[in-house]
Amino acid sequence: MLKGFRDFLPQEEGNRRWMLEKIANAFETCGFEPIQTPTIEYLDILMGKYGEEGEKLLYHFKDHGQREVALRYDLTVPLARFVAQHRDIPKPFKRYQIGTVFRAEKPAHGRFREFVQCDADCVGSASFLADADCISAGILALKALGLENFRVRIGHRGVLNAILEYFSIHNHVPVLRALDKLEKQGEEAVISEIQSLGIESERAKRLIQTIRCKEGLTVARQVSPLAVKNLSLVVEALSAMGLSNYVTIDLSIARGLDYYTGPVFETKLLDLPQMGSVMSGGRYDSLLGMFCGEDLPAVGISIGVDRLFSALVELGLIRGANQAVFVVLCPFEEVGLPLSLRVLQMLRQALVPSEVVVDFPSKPKKQLTYAGRRRARFAILVGGREVHENSLTIKDLSTGEQKSMGVEETINFVLKEFGAQRGNR
Amino acid sequence: MLKGFRDFLPQEEGNRRWMLEKIANAFETCGFEPIQTPTIEYLDILMGKYGEEGEKLLYHFKDHGQREVALRYDLTVPLARFVAQHRDIPKPFKRYQIGTVFRAEKPAHGRFREFVQCDADCVGSASFLADADCISAGILALKALGLENFRVRIGHRGVLNAILEYFSIHNHVPVLRALDKLEKQGEEAVISEIQSLGIESERAKRLIQTIRCKEGLTVARQVSPLAVKNLSLVVEALSAMGLSNYVTIDLSIARGLDYYTGPVFETKLLDLPQMGSVMSGGRYDSLLGMFCGEDLPAVGISIGVDRLFSALVELGLIRGANQAVFVVLCPFEEVGLPLSLRVLQMLRQALVPSEVVVDFPSKPKKQLTYAGRRRARFAILVGGREVHENSLTIKDLSTGEQKSMGVEETINFVLKEFGAQRGNR
Repeated sequence: MLKGFRDFLPQEEGNRRWMLEKIANAFETCGFEPIQTPTIEYLDILMGKYGEEGEKLLYHFKDHGQREVALRYDLTVPLARFVAQHRDIPKPFKRYQIGTVFRAEKPAHGRFREFVQCDADCVGSASFLADADCISAGILALKALGLENFRVRIGHRGVLNAILEYFSIHNHVPVLRALDKLEKQGEEAVISEIQSLGIESERAKRLIQTIRCKEGLTVARQVSPLAVKNLSLVVEALSAMGLSNYVTIDLSIARGLDYYTGPVFETKLLDLPQMGSVMSGGRYDSLLGMFCGEDLPAVGISIGVDRLFSALVELGLIRGANQAVFVVLCPFEEVGLPLSLRVLQMLRQALVPSEVVVDFPSKPKKQLTYAGRRRARFAILVGGREVHENSLTIKDLSTGEQKSMGVEETINFVLKEFGAQRGNR
Repeated sequence: MLKGFRDFLPQEEGNRRWMLEKIANAFETCGFEPIQTPTIEYLDILMGKYGEEGEKLLYHFKDHGQREVALRYDLTVPLARFVAQHRDIPKPFKRYQIGTVFRAEKPAHGRFREFVQCDADCVGSASFLADADCISAGILALKALGLENFRVRIGHRGVLNAILEYFSIHNHVPVLRALDKLEKQGEEAVISEIQSLGIESERAKRLIQTIRCKEGLTVARQVSPLAVKNLSLVVEALSAMGLSNYVTIDLSIARGLDYYTGPVFETKLLDLPQMGSVMSGGRYDSLLGMFCGEDLPAVGISIGVDRLFSALVELGLIRGANQAVFVVLCPFEEVGLPLSLRVLQMLRQALVPSEVVVDFPSKPKKQLTYAGRRRARFAILVGGREVHENSLTIKDLSTGEQKSMGVEETINFVLKEFGAQRGNR
């Protein structure tokens, strides 16, 4: 296997599927509908969107028709292409997409060359309610996974720009990029980066102080009252939804990507303070204009699936060993096979995960070992005696208890136990 | 967008997700566990597995480290690489995988360059029960989608080889490839292809006759009684599962790929006789030896997702327009927004798909139009009067009926109606 790529074994993949389903359900509960786009796009579509650093990481090549193509780098630019291509889609357009993206990064702990992104975006509305809608969908997804102790920190590009103007800093982009590193690299490193842009250290220090306290809003209001108003509308809407415990204003949130124009947000798990953001995004009102000819306002969130999964494991929110099946049928003698298969099918029709030991004929002990390895709750043993009496012997693998019953009776018993197990989850 | 690739819009993608979930659930009910492998593999891994024709269709390129890599062409060869790489996985290993694969085909009606495959395989058992297990999982998946009128036609490479030997034909591979085209191209075309391999027309004709009738089994038994026995054990096991209505022996099934060694199968929808197989596969006991050093028996099925989806649409088994949400909150006046958002969150917590009109403020008529476009069942209207009375006005968009109730009462009413709608599905 190539470096930076991964196989997912049944245990982990089962849990990842569970996680992605919870997220998808939360997004659908909030009215976001699924779409899918190709893994490969024209290289042109992706160029000029991710900055120089990002472009270097694109997997690109010539296809059989000598077209320059590339593997998608994220799901946002394909969304922009999608919206431009399907112009008749009614707006606001609320979609989610789950898919793998590709970046030729240097592989490192927790950094991979192919990974899953999970995005929800609202295209075509400039309203603060669209921002609140995306953020609340993200919050609902995290809560659906059992997370409670987290905080979505909401900043605002317009507010930050206003504060920069207040400090007579007009070259916004590189300063925002520096500010984005505040949490990771600390104040001193950021001050010296801002200094290197020709801003004296005292001004840089005061800038950072202002951003880090409530004063920032007061200062920004003098330059751009609308931006401050917009930010508070978003936060008030989330409060009205009863979500104020999960959100906080933090003007130091800048986000690295150039295309953000309004509210921007990151999410911290308070129990894992070292871990980066698990749900981030913001408003990008100009990106779609590059594809559509006219500006189309948009806002979106992205859930970092790999990081979130690690967090869930660390916090004990991922189930342990999965049960491969609930019941394993064990035909102990050749004569027991037809009855085993009949019972198997009855259980499967009733949607009870079940299977027969396929290595047949094999010794009873080996069959029970297999049932244990599959973490089955029950083994049903079918030998000559059972066939003769039209009965089944059922062994509870959690207690070792074993009893014989009629076929119907056994199936009803299994259905009841399966229902109880499901109810407990 | 590149030719041969596709965007899936919400309507279709929602239904595709529903279909894939049904298939995944059926596979899990049968004890197949999910895995995932990378989209990109070393080119070497994929070469020499698909024949010359297949290899031409590989998307391959040099990555940033000048490694020759390729996009996966199917999920079977990656499975073989996976099993070789994770040698400690207990056998028999029953896995399923759903993922996109890539082939640089000439785009045509129903033929795409990126498409989803959906495979279930059992690795490490040579038993006929493993074959029956895979086939029965495929049948359960089709039944879960509402299909009943279909037939899995089961042939056998060993039986076919025996019949070829009986006719003194020793160059099996090209003859099998010709026989695979019997259904698509008709008898004459196949006879002339076999003739071109140096076999006189009379012998070719008798060969085809033999394969097409019961006589084939009698003839084969003289050369290879074990192969015939193996085929009938598979069919008997499926009968014991009560699935005999869905399966039939058909010795003319040969399958194109070279690597099959035992039972092979294809599935016809009897209501759509022109359509090709929707579920196919077979036993391939030698492929894994190319990766593992020693032979490891394996059998698997693959569901053709695109074809199956078309079939479900044509047979009316796909739901029509999806409901984007069940409820749309319509804040008619600014004063109604906080109450709207509070109710929205209560509904979402109860997992009722719901949203607020994000374009706010906007005219009542525009808001109701939006709710209709989302195919919502209810619009909840919140204006000054509702806020004053702490009530809600709920409009049933299917009947046009409208009434006012207290907040709690409205929510209980919606929950009841939502439960009823879900119960009806």
